[in-house]
Amino acid sequence: MAWPRIARSSLKQSGRAIGNYITDKGILGEGASASKCYLSTLRNATESGNLKYLSNLRNIDYASFGSRGMRVTPQCQSPAEMVLEESDSEHENTRIPGLEATKPGEKPRVVVLGTGWAACRFLKGLDTKTYDVVCISPRNHMVFTPLLASTCVGTLEFRSVAEPVGRIQSALSTDPNSYFYLASCTGADIDKHEVYCETVGNVGLPNEPYRFKVAYDKLVIAAGAEPLTFNIKGVKEHAFFLREVNHAQEIRKKLLLNLMLSENPGISEEEKKRLLHCVVIGGGPTGVEFSGELSDFIMKDVRERYSHVKDDIRVTLIEANEILSSFDIGLRQYATKHLTKCGVRLMRGVVKEVHSNKLVLSDGTDVPYGLLVWSTGVGPSQFVKSLDLPKAPGGRIGVDEWLRVPSVDDVYALGDCAGFLEQTGKQVLPALAQVAEREGKYLVELFNRIGKQNGGKAFSAKDIPLGEPFVYKHLGSMATVGRYKALVDLRNAKDGKGISHAGFVSWFIWRSAYLTRVISWRNRFYVAVNWATTFVFGRDNSRIG
Amino acid sequence: MAWPRIARSSLKQSGRAIGNYITDKGILGEGASASKCYLSTLRNATESGNLKYLSNLRNIDYASFGSRGMRVTPQCQSPAEMVLEESDSEHENTRIPGLEATKPGEKPRVVVLGTGWAACRFLKGLDTKTYDVVCISPRNHMVFTPLLASTCVGTLEFRSVAEPVGRIQSALSTDPNSYFYLASCTGADIDKHEVYCETVGNVGLPNEPYRFKVAYDKLVIAAGAEPLTFNIKGVKEHAFFLREVNHAQEIRKKLLLNLMLSENPGISEEEKKRLLHCVVIGGGPTGVEFSGELSDFIMKDVRERYSHVKDDIRVTLIEANEILSSFDIGLRQYATKHLTKCGVRLMRGVVKEVHSNKLVLSDGTDVPYGLLVWSTGVGPSQFVKSLDLPKAPGGRIGVDEWLRVPSVDDVYALGDCAGFLEQTGKQVLPALAQVAEREGKYLVELFNRIGKQNGGKAFSAKDIPLGEPFVYKHLGSMATVGRYKALVDLRNAKDGKGISHAGFVSWFIWRSAYLTRVISWRNRFYVAVNWATTFVFGRDNSRIG
Repeated sequence: MAWPRIARSSLKQSGRAIGNYITDKGILGEGASASKCYLSTLRNATESGNLKYLSNLRNIDYASFGSRGMRVTPQCQSPAEMVLEESDSEHENTRIPGLEATKPGEKPRVVVLGTGWAACRFLKGLDTKTYDVVCISPRNHMVFTPLLASTCVGTLEFRSVAEPVGRIQSALSTDPNSYFYLASCTGADIDKHEVYCETVGNVGLPNEPYRFKVAYDKLVIAAGAEPLTFNIKGVKEHAFFLREVNHAQEIRKKLLLNLMLSENPGISEEEKKRLLHCVVIGGGPTGVEFSGELSDFIMKDVRERYSHVKDDIRVTLIEANEILSSFDIGLRQYATKHLTKCGVRLMRGVVKEVHSNKLVLSDGTDVPYGLLVWSTGVGPSQFVKSLDLPKAPGGRIGVDEWLRVPSVDDVYALGDCAGFLEQTGKQVLPALAQVAEREGKYLVELFNRIGKQNGGKAFSAKDIPLGEPFVYKHLGSMATVGRYKALVDLRNAKDGKGISHAGFVSWFIWRSAYLTRVISWRNRFYVAVNWATTFVFGRDNSRIG
Repeated sequence: MAWPRIARSSLKQSGRAIGNYITDKGILGEGASASKCYLSTLRNATESGNLKYLSNLRNIDYASFGSRGMRVTPQCQSPAEMVLEESDSEHENTRIPGLEATKPGEKPRVVVLGTGWAACRFLKGLDTKTYDVVCISPRNHMVFTPLLASTCVGTLEFRSVAEPVGRIQSALSTDPNSYFYLASCTGADIDKHEVYCETVGNVGLPNEPYRFKVAYDKLVIAAGAEPLTFNIKGVKEHAFFLREVNHAQEIRKKLLLNLMLSENPGISEEEKKRLLHCVVIGGGPTGVEFSGELSDFIMKDVRERYSHVKDDIRVTLIEANEILSSFDIGLRQYATKHLTKCGVRLMRGVVKEVHSNKLVLSDGTDVPYGLLVWSTGVGPSQFVKSLDLPKAPGGRIGVDEWLRVPSVDDVYALGDCAGFLEQTGKQVLPALAQVAEREGKYLVELFNRIGKQNGGKAFSAKDIPLGEPFVYKHLGSMATVGRYKALVDLRNAKDGKGISHAGFVSWFIWRSAYLTRVISWRNRFYVAVNWATTFVFGRDNSRIG
C-alpha cells in the first residue's frame, strides 16, 4: 500500500527548497516560501501519475493550513494557488483541530508514522511511563510479511498474519494521552513540530476527509516503501503486489475466480490456459516463496478439487537475472532445481509492458497470463520523494548512524523509508523485515535512554550522549521453496562465510523460526493451527466477497 | 445477496404469460411470445429500482438468446427490443456454448441453482452414482448463517462459517461430468430443459459477461430470498444486511472504522456519539443475536481497547412489534431484561426513511447512527418475482407437497424461494435454515429413490410413486442474547407445548448444537478454536482492506 504522503511544508532552509522545486516561478516573498513549497510538492507528486494520490490531493482544503502562517503572494499563481486564495478568504478563521504541543510537566509525546516492522518494533519497546505515544497509519495492524505469500492460497488465514497495533503497544488504546489514528500524514511543519493528517475512509463527517494536526516532541518516520514498477506501462493497472493483507485477499480471489471460470463450458483451450497461467515477476524471496506456495497449492489442492482443469494450470517465474541473488550459490542451485521439479517454469526475461491479458518481454515474446504478481522489490514512496530532507543514495530519507535526520531537530527515520547518508560511509541497508525490526529495537532503546535523562521533550536532547551508533549484523536469510523444503543461509554477508542448508530440516527451521517471531501468542497459536489444519484437511477454497 | 435472477423465457401457457405482462402491447405473433415475455420480465424488474440488476441488464446481449428461436415482430418495439433486433442481425449465427442434453446411456443430470442451506443439504445427499450434478451459484460456499453475527465482531473468523461447496459434494470437483459454475442464472427454457447463465467477475474473456447454457434432466431451484426493505427510502443505500460473509466483513470494517475515527482529535461530542451509535432494525433472531454480540464486544473488547471512547458507544435495537415474537413469552421477557442489562436500548418504532447519518421514525423522531444493520426478514427476490410460475401466498414459487412445481416437468423448488401452494392446504413455512435443510434432505431422498427406479432422466419420472409428502416438524428455536446466555425454545409450534429455557445452560446447548451442525470437521474445529481464543485472548480487531 502506498503509505501516507507527507509534505514538509516549512523548511529550515526554505531558499534551497524553492530552488529545488519552483525555479520557474520567479522571486517569492519570504512569507510565501513555505506554502509555495508545499504546493509545489503536491504538483511534483501529481506529475508522477499516481492516481490515487491525485484524487486525494483534489480534496485538500488548502485553507485549512492557513493557520500555519502560509500565504501566497498574488503575483504568481498557479491554478492550485488560486484555489488556496479563494478558499482562504472563505475560511479565514478555520483552525484545524488537533493535539496541541505538550506542556511543561506533561510527558513528552512521540509521534510514529507507520505500522510496519520498524514502527511496531519501536512501539513495542517504548517506555510509556516516560513517553506518550501517538501512532498514525492508514492501517491499524502490522503485517507479518514473510508469511503473507502463504495466505494467498489458503495455507494460512489472513488474520493469522495481521497483528493489531493496539496489541503490540497497549498504551495506544488505554493510556489517556496516547492514541492510534487511522489516518494518512499529509504534511508537517518541522519548525513548529507538528504533523498534519487526513483520516481514511468515509464515515459521513461534515468535513471529509477530516483533517487534524498532531504536535510532537519527537517524530519517528517509519512509513515504508512502495513496490518498484520501473515505470513499466500497465503494471499498476494489471499486476497484483504482495505487500498488504488485502493484496493477498485480492490475489486469492482472482486465483479462485480463474480456477472456477476456466471450468465453464465452451471456454477455448487457449483461454483456459491463459486463465490458469500464473506469472510471477521477480525472483527475490517473495516471488520464490509465492511460486512455491502456488505450486504446493496446485500439486495438492488443485489436483484434488479442480480435477477438470488440473492439467492446464501453470506457474512461470520471470526474473531478469538470477533468482535469490542474495543467497549462497549452492542454495540458488537447489532452489532452481526444486522449483523446476515442482512444475514452476523459470524464465529469464525483462518485462517491457503489461496488458490486461498478456505481458510483453523486451525480446518481443508475448506471455499471456490469468494472474500476474509483481514482486521486484521496493523503492522510495512518492511521499519520501516529495520530502525535502537529505537523501541517502537511492532516494530514501538520509539518516546518520543514530537514525536521526540531520539538520532538523527531533526527527528520526528508519525501516524501508530510511537509509544511511553517504557521508556516514555506510551502505544503505536492504529493505528487509530483519533490518527494519533491528532499527526499531535500536531506536527505541535510544529513546528510552534519552527519555530517562529528561531529553524527551522537543529540542531538549541536544546535550545527551547518544551512545553507540546503530550497527546492522545480518543474521541470515531464509526462504521456503514449497513442498516442505526451504533454504537457510546463515552467512552474515553476501560474500561472507557461514552455514547454508537446504531441504526439509531447513523447512522445519523456517517454520519454527517464524512461529517464534510472530508477535502475539494468539497469532502464534493460529499460525500453528492453520498449518496443522492445512496438513490434515487441505487448504480452504471458499471465495468470499 | 441477491441471487441469480432467472427469467422463464418459454412458457407452456404463453398466452397467459403475455396477458400477465404486456397487455398494453397489442397482438403478438406466436414466435414472439417467448422473447416478449422474457423482455417484459426484464422491464418489470427494471421498474423495481434494483440498480445492481439494472446494470446487469444493460450488458445483456439479447442476440445470444437468438438460438432459442425467439424473434420479435418489428411492429411493436420498445427500446430494449430495438437493441435486440439490431444485435440480432449482427450476431445472427451466435450460438452460446454449454452442456448439451444428456444422451441415452449417460447418467441423468441434476442442475441445482443456489448454495444455501437447502441446496447444500440436497447436494450433500445426492447419490452421484445415479446422477451427474451441476451446481450454479454466484458464490462457491455455503454460509453457516446462524453464526454469521459472531463474525462481525471478531468472535469467529469469516472462514469458519463458510463451507466450500466442493467439500460438501466432492463429485462437483472430481466427477468428470459434474461441475460447479460460479455464475448467475439469467433465464431458462422449461420446454427445452435448459438454463441460461452468466459468469460473475471479470477475467478478461473476449465476451464478458460470459454466457453459457446448461441442459438439465431435473432442475432444483434453491435460490433463496432477499432482505425485505418494505421500499423504505435509503435502506439499500445506507444500511447493511447480514446474509453473506462479505456483509459481515463490511459491517466489521465499518464498526472498526467508526471506533477508530471517533478517537480523532476535534471530533465533536455529538459526532462522536453518532459515529458510535449502532442501530439494529428488526428484533428477530438475527437482530437480537447481532445486538448481543455487539454488546459483548463493547463490554469486553471496547472497554479494554478503545478506552478513549468506551463510554460513548451504544446499541439500539428498533422493532415495530415485540422482539423474538416467535419465542415463548417467558423467553421474550428474559431476552428483553437481559439485553437491557447488557446496555442494549430496546425501542419501539417504525422506520420511515433512512439518510446517510440518521434515520427517521414514523413518529418523526430522528435517530442519528454510525452503523445501521437491517434485519427485518426476507421476502421473494426479484428473480422469483419475475418468474411466471404458480406462486404461493406471499410470492414465493409455489410447490406441491413433494416440492415439485406443478404444471411444468422436472422442476423443483425449495428453501426460502419456495412455499406451499394455497391448494395444498398447508401454510408457507418460515424462512429458516432448519426448514431449508429439512426440505433439502427430503428432496434428495426423493431424487435418490426416483433415480434408482430409472426416473432420473427428463420426462421419465411420471409413473414413479413419490411416496410420503414432505411434512415439516419444528424442532425448536435457539437464539443467543450475549454474555454466555441464550434462549432455547423446544416447543414444536408457536402455541404448542414443550420445554423452553433461558440462561447459561441454554447458551451451552446453543454452542454445542451449532458446533455439531457446522458441516465439516475442519470448520467444527475452527469454530471451537475461535471460541477458545476469543475467550483467552479477546477478539481480534485488525481492520483489513
